[in-house]
Amino acid sequence: MSMKPFPMNLNFKTGELTPNDRTNIRKLSDMKGMFLDSEAERRILEKDDPLIYSFSEKVLPEENGHLQIATTTIHPGKIGDEYHMTKGHYHRRPDTSEMYLGLEGEGCLLMQTVEGDFESITIRPGTVAYIPPYWGHRMVNTGRTPYIFFAVYPGDAGHNYGDIEKTGFLKILIERNGKPLLIDNPRWKK
Amino acid sequence: MSMKPFPMNLNFKTGELTPNDRTNIRKLSDMKGMFLDSEAERRILEKDDPLIYSFSEKVLPEENGHLQIATTTIHPGKIGDEYHMTKGHYHRRPDTSEMYLGLEGEGCLLMQTVEGDFESITIRPGTVAYIPPYWGHRMVNTGRTPYIFFAVYPGDAGHNYGDIEKTGFLKILIERNGKPLLIDNPRWKK
Repeated sequence: MSMKPFPMNLNFKTGELTPNDRTNIRKLSDMKGMFLDSEAERRILEKDDPLIYSFSEKVLPEENGHLQIATTTIHPGKIGDEYHMTKGHYHRRPDTSEMYLGLEGEGCLLMQTVEGDFESITIRPGTVAYIPPYWGHRMVNTGRTPYIFFAVYPGDAGHNYGDIEKTGFLKILIERNGKPLLIDNPRWKK
Repeated sequence: MSMKPFPMNLNFKTGELTPNDRTNIRKLSDMKGMFLDSEAERRILEKDDPLIYSFSEKVLPEENGHLQIATTTIHPGKIGDEYHMTKGHYHRRPDTSEMYLGLEGEGCLLMQTVEGDFESITIRPGTVAYIPPYWGHRMVNTGRTPYIFFAVYPGDAGHNYGDIEKTGFLKILIERNGKPLLIDNPRWKK
């Protein structure tokens, strides 16, 4: 018997997962070059370093057969016209899935494969999104309140942020006339 | 690219997962011999065959790297003094975990290993229970309203109901003076 069962508590309104072992913070300075409008990024960073998102995880074995559990909060806001978002990643073991459950706020899940396929899913409280193997994924807060979601993925999935950092995402989500609009990313390279 | 991403909707109040591919029903006649009080079981079945629980699943590949997603509703009630419960199972691939999230009502998660270890966790809305590899698990509705929960587990975990059917659970959950009480199962055999 390797490990004992345990409970946690998930607050559906705040996304707080307690107890958790690790809360990670991503400020704008941690995401340099990821937003399209580098001039807006530079201007904001001159006077401030806003919190873009945070996520809390339970530390579980990174082994096949286990699961990983996390909650993420993306704070509302934009860098230029582009909504706050997560860095986005493929899994280090690319043939693994992920399940997202929307808890609060409004968002959009952007997904792509290395072959250049692209899909997006609008996420509201109660939306369950299934991300099959091989799809890189990024979450975007398209609302004016914190956007909170719960994630479960295989224990040995791991994170590969580097490939997304190199290519960017195929499409980016900007605000146009007060509404989200998905546009081609002029900087994307396959 | 093996499969495209897709959304579903989880109703936090009813547990309804839409669209789903399969809704399974377990009536008392499907669980013969699982409740301790066989006389109560016989009396009830003479005039009725109550619905004990139902669960809805999305059909996903039973493959390593994928996940399985399901919601379960256990209807309130007792057979004799014993609360309505699920059949309970080990995973066919025993070294796999499961994550449960309580959505509505009150319940208790009973877990055991084949070596005879036992654990229980009280589940309320927002409780996240992590069931590590090798722990067989059964859910029990200890309340007076439907008890609803959401589950995610590895794609290749599978179900092994047979071993629990042979041994029963180490402990059973009965109502005593209006409250849940965990007692040794006199019929349990290692």
